[in-house]
Amino acid sequence: MENKRPLILISNDDGYHAPGIRKLVEFVKDMADVLVCAPEAARSGYSCAFSAVDYLRLKPRHNMGDTMVYSCTGTPVDCVKIALDQLCAERRPTLILSGINHGDNSSVNNHYSGTMGVAKEGCMKYIPSVAFSSCYYDENANLEPLRPYVQRIVGDVLQKGLPKGVCLNVNFPAAQKFKGIKVCRMTFGSWIEETVKERHPRGYDYYWVVGKYRNDEPGVEGTDQWALDNGYVAITPTQTDVTAYDAMDGLKQIYE
Amino acid sequence: MENKRPLILISNDDGYHAPGIRKLVEFVKDMADVLVCAPEAARSGYSCAFSAVDYLRLKPRHNMGDTMVYSCTGTPVDCVKIALDQLCAERRPTLILSGINHGDNSSVNNHYSGTMGVAKEGCMKYIPSVAFSSCYYDENANLEPLRPYVQRIVGDVLQKGLPKGVCLNVNFPAAQKFKGIKVCRMTFGSWIEETVKERHPRGYDYYWVVGKYRNDEPGVEGTDQWALDNGYVAITPTQTDVTAYDAMDGLKQIYE
Repeated sequence: MENKRPLILISNDDGYHAPGIRKLVEFVKDMADVLVCAPEAARSGYSCAFSAVDYLRLKPRHNMGDTMVYSCTGTPVDCVKIALDQLCAERRPTLILSGINHGDNSSVNNHYSGTMGVAKEGCMKYIPSVAFSSCYYDENANLEPLRPYVQRIVGDVLQKGLPKGVCLNVNFPAAQKFKGIKVCRMTFGSWIEETVKERHPRGYDYYWVVGKYRNDEPGVEGTDQWALDNGYVAITPTQTDVTAYDAMDGLKQIYE
Repeated sequence: MENKRPLILISNDDGYHAPGIRKLVEFVKDMADVLVCAPEAARSGYSCAFSAVDYLRLKPRHNMGDTMVYSCTGTPVDCVKIALDQLCAERRPTLILSGINHGDNSSVNNHYSGTMGVAKEGCMKYIPSVAFSSCYYDENANLEPLRPYVQRIVGDVLQKGLPKGVCLNVNFPAAQKFKGIKVCRMTFGSWIEETVKERHPRGYDYYWVVGKYRNDEPGVEGTDQWALDNGYVAITPTQTDVTAYDAMDGLKQIYE
């Protein structure tokens, strides 16, 4: 008998044991069959990196009741690749979800985020994909208020899909109540003062990558940072075609 | 006395010792002062990943004559961040270059590429940035035919800059002669059959990430793969604003 329920593949960049991914599974497990394949440990800032050199291992885990959970030693993108190739060869996921990330993935974090790496990888495989992130960096923050929003967005995307080459970057303000949803564009912002030099006890310099975020478009309505700053859930539709179409004519005049 | 020469920061993802980066330095060192800050070892497939957890170290190297060369223990993007913060605090680069990568970065490789990570990072810091890649995967391939193209593009960008939020992804066919330059859009393509399962002598399974590239728009003129397949140098202007503007109206009708 054919299985009529949709299959949702879930990954993240905080690791298979993170509270955020457990919460995401809890929110959607009545809507579909769920398979989790997530990094063995935290992989923040891994972007769309994959393991070109290192081998991967997959291990079944049993930390979410009857949900099938695998940990993978690689990056968030590796988790999608290996899940599709090794775990979903017989049954392609209807939807790929990522998160719930513990931390903000709006603005230029879209590029650095391993959470978004998962959604972009799904999108590059033409599978509708949504990343969820909360601006609470505290892993113990109460994510329960996200439930109706996550369920609504997942329900909509299960039913209607997404345009080819488009995935969703959904960010929630660090709040316990939201004013509604805004569909946004990515904010131009910058990370500055990004490294801190330290002196090792053995007498050499080393560096930590840290940084301060600067909004380069403060107060500009329509940006994802504006939505978050004003208490809205921000949906930033994100495309995998990164061609700068507006720059093409000028360049053609120079080079063709 | 103020230094009137431009400063070019160069990085890559193959490591500071790779033939491609040495060649790039050789091509441009008469056009500007050059500072190299590149990964200590190969970092293929690192995308825009940065080191959120691991510390970095910087070491001066002396493998390119009188060019200042530093190796960094981190990712390609880390190299840009630490160079701007620690090495270029007094003198901001006029231009950031990446490459010459040993391997094709057209199509969806744009997302996975550490070479493109360098250019995107520069672009997110509002510095004109260009990534160069050759479709020769062989490190010993003769890159000399790229010289006039690289010098022309670098000269143009030094003079005219690039639009805000736009960097260039320049790919060269695996050939010793080129038919000219085409300004292209990113090809939709897919990596398939991406993992290979192996059995470890100790009795467990492990996996390598490999894959075959499938062009999903074969023969479509105007795509970067088409240009490369037909002997042209492909310039794919790439933007850091990944908002899917065309999808916004439809989503606003659902969610706002």
